Amino acid sequence: MTYSGEGGCLTGIHSEEQFSAPVIALSGGVGGAKLVLGLTRVMDPASLAVVANTGDDFDHLGLRVCPDIDTLVYTLSGLSNPETGWGRKGESGHFMDVLTELREETWFFLGDKDMAMHVARTRRLALGQRLSEVTRDVCESLGLKVRILPMSDDSVATLVETESGLLPFQHYFVRDRCAPRVRGFQFDGAAKAAPNPAFLSALADRQLRAVIIAPSNPFISIDPILALPGVRSALRDCAAPVVAVTPIVRGEAIKGPTAKMMRELNIDTTAVAVAHHYEDIIDGFILDATDADIVSQVEALGVATIATNTVMDSLDDRVMLARDVLEFCHEISPPTGDRHISP
Amino acid sequence: MTYSGEGGCLTGIHSEEQFSAPVIALSGGVGGAKLVLGLTRVMDPASLAVVANTGDDFDHLGLRVCPDIDTLVYTLSGLSNPETGWGRKGESGHFMDVLTELREETWFFLGDKDMAMHVARTRRLALGQRLSEVTRDVCESLGLKVRILPMSDDSVATLVETESGLLPFQHYFVRDRCAPRVRGFQFDGAAKAAPNPAFLSALADRQLRAVIIAPSNPFISIDPILALPGVRSALRDCAAPVVAVTPIVRGEAIKGPTAKMMRELNIDTTAVAVAHHYEDIIDGFILDATDADIVSQVEALGVATIATNTVMDSLDDRVMLARDVLEFCHEISPPTGDRHISP
Repeated sequence: MTYSGEGGCLTGIHSEEQFSAPVIALSGGVGGAKLVLGLTRVMDPASLAVVANTGDDFDHLGLRVCPDIDTLVYTLSGLSNPETGWGRKGESGHFMDVLTELREETWFFLGDKDMAMHVARTRRLALGQRLSEVTRDVCESLGLKVRILPMSDDSVATLVETESGLLPFQHYFVRDRCAPRVRGFQFDGAAKAAPNPAFLSALADRQLRAVIIAPSNPFISIDPILALPGVRSALRDCAAPVVAVTPIVRGEAIKGPTAKMMRELNIDTTAVAVAHHYEDIIDGFILDATDADIVSQVEALGVATIATNTVMDSLDDRVMLARDVLEFCHEISPPTGDRHISP
Repeated sequence: MTYSGEGGCLTGIHSEEQFSAPVIALSGGVGGAKLVLGLTRVMDPASLAVVANTGDDFDHLGLRVCPDIDTLVYTLSGLSNPETGWGRKGESGHFMDVLTELREETWFFLGDKDMAMHVARTRRLALGQRLSEVTRDVCESLGLKVRILPMSDDSVATLVETESGLLPFQHYFVRDRCAPRVRGFQFDGAAKAAPNPAFLSALADRQLRAVIIAPSNPFISIDPILALPGVRSALRDCAAPVVAVTPIVRGEAIKGPTAKMMRELNIDTTAVAVAHHYEDIIDGFILDATDADIVSQVEALGVATIATNTVMDSLDDRVMLARDVLEFCHEISPPTGDRHISP
C-alpha cells in the first residue's frame, strides 16, 4: 500500500470511536514528542499511553534527571522550548550561572524552572516512590490526560561503545556532543528490569488499536524499550498493528545523531535500514513522501508501507502525520482486531 | 569601664598590628553577619575566623541547607539581599514557582541562584567531603579572605521545645514563623559532635587577640556553638578576652524572636540578662548606648562593660561598631596577652 499524505485524504474511518480506542506510542525525546503531541490532537488523550525511554536517565549533581520523560511532559503540556525541542520555554539560567561560579560541572544545562522537576522527582524516589508514580503525579499536577509511562521503574542505563571507550549516554550525547565514533550500545540493567506493568497490560488489552513506534532514534531511544524482558514478544502478540515512523528522510536524520550512528555502525542510512532494524516486530512502516521511491524496498521485507509527510515543522504537520499514522494502523488492522490468533 | 561610643574616640592602639592579629567571631545569621562585615573592614580579613552556627542546618527537598553559613557567605561577598539580610540580591523564584505547581513543600524559599549553593554542597557532602572543606571551597571560589568555619563537621540539629511539642528549628522559625510559645531548646547531636578543629586551634593560638560573640540570638545561634564538647572551657582558657555584643536594645531585639523567646522563658528582656546568660565565658560586654543606664548592672556581674551604638543600619554603623569592639577587646586585654595563666 502506497499513499502520499500530501494534500490527500485517506478513506479510512475517521469516527470518534476509532480515535478513542487505546493506542500505545513508544517514544524517545524531541522527535517522538512531536508525533505524540499530534496524536493528542486527533484522538482522546486519555486513551493514549506513551511509553518513554528511560535509558537516557542519569544521576547528575545528586539529582535524578529523566530527559525523555521531561521532554514529553513539557511538549504535551505546552511548556516546551520551541527552539530546542527540549527544556522549557521562558527558561532562565540563574542556577547555572552560580554553579559556574562554584566551579561545578556545567556541561548539562539545568534551567531554573526545570530544576523543580528534578528536585521533586529525586525527593520522591528517595522516599521509595516508583518512577511511574512520580511521573503520573507530575502529569496530573500539570493537567495532562495522556498517560506517560516510563518504560520501567527499574534503572536502565544506556552506555555507548565508542572508539574512546564506553561512555554513559549523557556524556556521549551532551558532554561530548556525539563526537566519538560509535561501535555499539549496551543497556545496563535492562536484562533484569521489569517493563512497566501498565505498558504490558496496555499491550495485552484486546481493545488496543495501534502501537506506534515514534520517529525517535532506533538505537538509543527505542532499542532500550525493546531490550526489556518480554517486550518484543508482547509486541508480536498484541492485538493491534505495530507501526514505525521513520526517523530517516532522504538518508539523513531530521535531528540528532541517528544517521551519523548508522554510518559508524556500517548501516545504510536509509529508511529501509530502519524498517529492517524493526523487521521482527512491525507490521507497518511509514517513510517520508520524499522517499516514496523506496516504498517497494520496505514492502519487500514483508512490511506494509506508506509514504507521507513525516517532517514535523509545524503543529499542523504533527497533527496530519498523527492522523495518517492512525489511519494507516486502522487500514492494516485485521477485521477481528486480532492479527495473530486469527488466521 | 563605661564608654559611650556616640561621637567619642577611643584612645587605644589603632595600629595595623593590632587589627591584623587573629580574631574569632561566633555568629549566627543576619545580625551576626552585619558585625562580621564591619570587622572585615577594620582588620585584615585573613586574620578573622568566623565560627558559624550550624544548628539551623537541615535537609530540605533532599538538599542540605545551611542558612547561617550562607548568610555569612552572601553578606561578606556583597551578594546578600539588603532588604531581608538573608538570601541573595537580584534573586529570582522560578524554581519555587514550578515547585508550587508540582505541589511540593514551599514554606522554605529557595531562590534560583541560592539553589546552586545547596546542590553543590549536597553533592560534595554525599561524596564524603566535610562541611568545613565545602565551605572553604565556596569561600575561595567567591574570593573571600575571611575564614568561615562551620562550628562542627558533625550534624547538630537545634530543636525547639514548644507548647505544640518539639519542633525542628526551621519548622519553628520559618514554617511556623516563631508563633509557638517556647519552653526550651535541644541541640541534638551536640554532645557527640566534634568542634571544628580549626576553631579549637584558633582558640589555642597564643596570638589570639579577641573572641567576639556577635549580637546573634543567644539561645538558637550561639548556644549551639557553646554546647559542643570543650568549647566553653576553651573559651575560658584562651589568650584573648571574650566579648559579647548585646542583641537586646531597650528591651527589644533588633530583629528576630530573641525578646519573644526571653519572655516565654521568663527571662527579663534586658541586655543584663544576656550578659548573665554568657557570664561564665565572657570578659567583656557591649550594650547599646541607649542602655547606658544599665552598664553598672552588667559590671556588677564582674564583666567589663561599655555602651556604644550597636544598631547597625548602615555600613558605617557596622564598621564603627566593629572598631569599637576591637578597641574594647584591646583595652581589656592583659598586657601579657594571657589573661588566665598570668595573675
